[in-house]
Amino acid sequence: MYRPEITVFDCTIRDGGLTNDSHFPLETVRAVYKAICDSGVDYVELGYRNSKEMLSTEQFGIWRFCDEEHLRSVVEGIDPKTTKISLMMDAHKSNPDDLLPVEDSVADMIRVATYVKDADKAINVAKRANELGYDVGINIMAISKEGPPFLDEALQQFESETDAKAIYIVDSFGALYSEEVHYLIERYKMHIKTKEIGVHFHNNQQLAFANTIEGVIKGANYLDGTLFGLGRAAGNCPLELLLGFLKNPKFDIVPLLKVIGSTIIPLRESIDWGYHIPYMLTGVLNQHPSDAIAWLAGDTPHDYSEFYKQIADEMGE
Amino acid sequence: MYRPEITVFDCTIRDGGLTNDSHFPLETVRAVYKAICDSGVDYVELGYRNSKEMLSTEQFGIWRFCDEEHLRSVVEGIDPKTTKISLMMDAHKSNPDDLLPVEDSVADMIRVATYVKDADKAINVAKRANELGYDVGINIMAISKEGPPFLDEALQQFESETDAKAIYIVDSFGALYSEEVHYLIERYKMHIKTKEIGVHFHNNQQLAFANTIEGVIKGANYLDGTLFGLGRAAGNCPLELLLGFLKNPKFDIVPLLKVIGSTIIPLRESIDWGYHIPYMLTGVLNQHPSDAIAWLAGDTPHDYSEFYKQIADEMGE
Repeated sequence: MYRPEITVFDCTIRDGGLTNDSHFPLETVRAVYKAICDSGVDYVELGYRNSKEMLSTEQFGIWRFCDEEHLRSVVEGIDPKTTKISLMMDAHKSNPDDLLPVEDSVADMIRVATYVKDADKAINVAKRANELGYDVGINIMAISKEGPPFLDEALQQFESETDAKAIYIVDSFGALYSEEVHYLIERYKMHIKTKEIGVHFHNNQQLAFANTIEGVIKGANYLDGTLFGLGRAAGNCPLELLLGFLKNPKFDIVPLLKVIGSTIIPLRESIDWGYHIPYMLTGVLNQHPSDAIAWLAGDTPHDYSEFYKQIADEMGE
Repeated sequence: MYRPEITVFDCTIRDGGLTNDSHFPLETVRAVYKAICDSGVDYVELGYRNSKEMLSTEQFGIWRFCDEEHLRSVVEGIDPKTTKISLMMDAHKSNPDDLLPVEDSVADMIRVATYVKDADKAINVAKRANELGYDVGINIMAISKEGPPFLDEALQQFESETDAKAIYIVDSFGALYSEEVHYLIERYKMHIKTKEIGVHFHNNQQLAFANTIEGVIKGANYLDGTLFGLGRAAGNCPLELLLGFLKNPKFDIVPLLKVIGSTIIPLRESIDWGYHIPYMLTGVLNQHPSDAIAWLAGDTPHDYSEFYKQIADEMGE
């Protein structure tokens, strides 16, 4: 009943780091790492390997840079079983010179996050990571704003110029409906012939899990989730829901249930991710959630009609 | 771009009443009623017309019985515009003798909620309501537990023995995935030839809105939602998301945004509906949420793995 090609990524610490500038305590990261390893999920993404020359080490915590010594402090004494470690590198905020050869690194995979316009930067990072021995993925962000002809050109380049394992649809704004997911996967398949298609959805309209299912139905085999949906603004596809849907007996949901109760739920005291009307509105209007995040931190967070008016005005509607 | 046949129901007070035994203050009900009328949503369901001989008037609030005098206190001084009023009657907890002729009632429509096994009771209530001049709908609850041959028999009876406007798929347990929604609508269409198909989904797996969209895609034209998803346990399809998806210009989302901020969000201080792991687990396991509700009210609400063990044991797994 299950499809063995399906590869699941946990992005709790990496995407969750967008809520708190990657300032998670080490014990939180170790608890998540151990639970993911115990669950049989294929990859755990522990953060970004972004450039300290491009990002402030004052502002951002250690999981935005993931020095090897910090990664070693996560994995020490924990049996990884079959789980591998991924890091993300933003094409426009990273330097491949910051990568060690894979045999000297705790990480196994590098996922390059990019906008279509930065495709050539992404290819440069991807190639260097491949040369150093890493598996590579390419995540095309803000896909709901992209289309022909530049998306096709980028897909063609990723197909022909890289050895990536997977090219991802990333719905950064949580804007997509199922019909658009189907369309995008068909569009990707026109160009991506030797690699898998991946999906990473945001939950502004409570569609992250549903769209992941639609991705699976259409043939996507690389799937992203986070524990209890932790992630910027409305958050992500909840990993526990994804494991409940997939029927692969290699996965065990119990370690996820335990770590959600012990480690993720307490984070809600300081991080308010999930379904909120301003995030829903930026999703419906296909906008970055930054205005919604600012609105919810302001004096009138529940004056939703005023926020709607503001963003509609900004869009020129 | 929009489908004019689509008819939208707000069930905030009716389904939300399952969270608090229908004890909403009058001003809450009036605020919801006014917002729905201003939004252009087709129907607002203000509660149940259940039997005071079968249910305790001590335990349940007035919106479980919806006496005409209480309905009049809701609508007084508010312009309904195009919005009509619906009441729900549980086939096994109501008495059609409690209905006045439609010209003496504030209500326009009666929706009969039933299990497949109670189909004949439902038909009795539906016929009487029709004779008294009401429009009628029939909501088949716990549909994820039903299938051939008894579901087919009930559908055939509803088709041939009633004048209902719509026969509904009600996913009481929040268990269905999109492929099952597609299957059920095809199954309904085998029997339902002269009536519309309706959909009412619960949000245990964050699929209520997504499944409603899938219903629309497959041809369902009667759609249920509630403000901010208010409803028992994980809640329902959020009405504001549904209006964001439908493109019918007769709908205005702004009154919904206002009443959510002013009236629904404050209810969260006393009612904790939405995504919680125990509700997710009963959804995945296709169980009634009652065990999950009890677990969350207990001493160890976040010990999810223990809850999972308990319900899996009860199921004999």
